[in-house]
Amino acid sequence: MVKTHPMWDDYPNIQAHLVACLELIIEKTTIENKDIEKTVTALIESQGKLLRPAYFLLFSQLGNAQKAAYDNIIAAAASTEVLHLATLIHDDIIDEAALRRGNETVHSKHGQDVAVYTGDLMISVYFELLADATDSVEIIQLNTQSMKQVLLGEINQMTNAYDTAITFDTYLNSIKGKTAQLFELSCYEGAYFGQCKPEVIEQSGVIGQNIGIAFQMLDDILDYTQTPENLSKPVLNDVKQGIYTLPLILGLEADKDAFLPLLEKGEQLSDSDLADLVALLHEHDCIERAHGIAREYIDKALALIEQLLDQPEKEVLYTLTKTLLTKDY
Amino acid sequence: MVKTHPMWDDYPNIQAHLVACLELIIEKTTIENKDIEKTVTALIESQGKLLRPAYFLLFSQLGNAQKAAYDNIIAAAASTEVLHLATLIHDDIIDEAALRRGNETVHSKHGQDVAVYTGDLMISVYFELLADATDSVEIIQLNTQSMKQVLLGEINQMTNAYDTAITFDTYLNSIKGKTAQLFELSCYEGAYFGQCKPEVIEQSGVIGQNIGIAFQMLDDILDYTQTPENLSKPVLNDVKQGIYTLPLILGLEADKDAFLPLLEKGEQLSDSDLADLVALLHEHDCIERAHGIAREYIDKALALIEQLLDQPEKEVLYTLTKTLLTKDY
Repeated sequence: MVKTHPMWDDYPNIQAHLVACLELIIEKTTIENKDIEKTVTALIESQGKLLRPAYFLLFSQLGNAQKAAYDNIIAAAASTEVLHLATLIHDDIIDEAALRRGNETVHSKHGQDVAVYTGDLMISVYFELLADATDSVEIIQLNTQSMKQVLLGEINQMTNAYDTAITFDTYLNSIKGKTAQLFELSCYEGAYFGQCKPEVIEQSGVIGQNIGIAFQMLDDILDYTQTPENLSKPVLNDVKQGIYTLPLILGLEADKDAFLPLLEKGEQLSDSDLADLVALLHEHDCIERAHGIAREYIDKALALIEQLLDQPEKEVLYTLTKTLLTKDY
Repeated sequence: MVKTHPMWDDYPNIQAHLVACLELIIEKTTIENKDIEKTVTALIESQGKLLRPAYFLLFSQLGNAQKAAYDNIIAAAASTEVLHLATLIHDDIIDEAALRRGNETVHSKHGQDVAVYTGDLMISVYFELLADATDSVEIIQLNTQSMKQVLLGEINQMTNAYDTAITFDTYLNSIKGKTAQLFELSCYEGAYFGQCKPEVIEQSGVIGQNIGIAFQMLDDILDYTQTPENLSKPVLNDVKQGIYTLPLILGLEADKDAFLPLLEKGEQLSDSDLADLVALLHEHDCIERAHGIAREYIDKALALIEQLLDQPEKEVLYTLTKTLLTKDY
C-alpha cells in the first residue's frame, strides 16, 4: 500500500481516502515507458502533504453525498493533487532542481525535454480524472479557469522578478493565483461533490482561498527563517531568483534605501550579502510582521470554519487547519 | 481581420470559418501581461496552415448540424489548433528554437520559464474551448485520451533518440501519437459536431489518422530533401537531434553497416558527414521508397474519402487532401 505523509497517521479516515487517491493517480499514469513511469510514481509516492485532496475530502464530508458518489469524490480529489504534481514537474524545469522531496526530479533524471511533456501528460491525467468524476461541463470549465489563474500567478511572479518596486498587492495577487486558487478550488469542489448546500459550497471556496494565502505566506517566511536541514531544500532561494516575497516587501516598504544596495546585486548575492539581508529583515521586524499578516488570513479561515454547521467533520477541519498553519516553524 | 495562410484564398467558405476560429483563440488568450500576450498573438496570427481546424470544419460540413450549432463548431475546431499551438510552444523550449514561422518564439523572447507556463496556459484554453463547445463529458474524455497519445508519441520519440536499432513499427507508433492522433481527433470531432451518422464519424477518424501519418512522413522526408530557404527552417535537423525518421530507417534496414559509422558520431555530425548521409540515402533509394510508403497512406485516405456520400463538401475535402499531400515537394 502507498504510504502517506506521517501527519495523516492521526486521521485514519482521511488517510484511507488519500491512499485511494494516490493509487488512482498511479493507475492513471501507467505508461509504456517504464523508466519515466517509475520517476513519476516515485514523485507520487514521495509523501507530500496531500493538502489539496485532503481539504477536498474534508469539505466533501460536510455534505450528504451518498456512498454511490464515493468513486467520483476520490477521482475529483485526486485531480487536485495531479494538477499540483504537474506544476511541480514544470517548476523543477524552471528551477533546474535536482531533487524534489528527496527523489531525483523528472528533469534531472530524464532531461528537460521529457519533463516538459511529462508535466503535460499530468495535465491530461488531471482532466481525465475530472471527466471521470463528473458529468458537469461547468465543473470542467471551473477547473480550466482555476488552472489559468494558477498559471497567470506563476507567470506574474516571473515577470515581476528582481522588481524592487513590487507592492504587497502585486505579491498578494500572484500568490492568490499560484497557490490559493488551487486550495480554493479543492475546498469548493469538495463541498460541491459532497453535495453541500450552495451557501456552504461558496463559503468553502472562501475558506480555501484564505488557507491558501496563509499557507503560501508561511512558506515564503520559512525561506528566510529555516536552516537547509530543517527545510530539506535550499533556503534563501527566492531572493536569489529575484522572487521578492512578503518579508522582503515589508522591508522595502519600511526602508527601501537600506535594502536596495543588496538587491541591486541581483543574482550575484553572496552568502555574506544574504546574511546581511536577513539581519536587515530582523532589524525591521519583517519576519514578525509577515507572520502577523499571515495570521489575519489564518484567523479569517478559522472563523469561517467555525461558522459552518456543527458536526464532527468540522472539528477535524478546524484542528487540522489550526495545526497546519500555526505549528512552530 | 486576422489573415490566414494564402492556401485558403481559394476556399473562402472555409477561410471565413478559420478566421472566426483564430479570432476566438485570440479572445481566449487575453491576459494581463501584454508582452506575453503579444508574443502568443503573433504566433496565432503567423499564418500556419491551420490544417487541424480546417479538417474539423470540412468534416463538420458533411453532416446536418443546424446553424444553431455554429458557435460550438467554431469553438471545438479552434480547440484543435490550440492544442497544436501548446505543443509548438513546448517544442520550441525543447529545440531551443529562436524562430517559429518567422516570429520570435515565446522561449526566445520571454525565456524558458515563461514558455513552460505559457504552453500550459494554452492547454487550459484548449479545455476551456472544448467545455464551451459541448455538454458531453465523453468528448472531454476523448480529448484527454488523444492528448495523452500525442504526448506519449513525443516522449517515445525522445527516448528512442540516437537508437540505431529503431524499427519502422516504433517510428509508425511514434508518429501515430505525436501527429496522426490530433488529425484523427480533428476529423472525428468535426464529423461528430457536424452531426454526421455514427459510421461517418468513425470513418472520418480513420481518414484523419491516414492523413496525419502521411503528413508526418512527408514532413520527415522534407527534412532530407529541401534547402533551408525553401523550408524556412533548418534542414537535416532531425538526424542531428537523433530523431531517425522514415528515410533513414529504410536506409538502416537496407544496409546498416553503411550508415552506422556516420550515426555513431551522434551530435558530432559535421556538414560533410550529413552530405555523406544524404548521398547514402539516395544510393539506397530511401527517399523514393519513403515517398512510396507515404503514398500508401495518402491513397488509403483518398479512397476512404471517396466512399463518403456524394456531396459538394466531399469534393473540397478530396481536392484539398490530394493537393496537400501530393504537391511537388
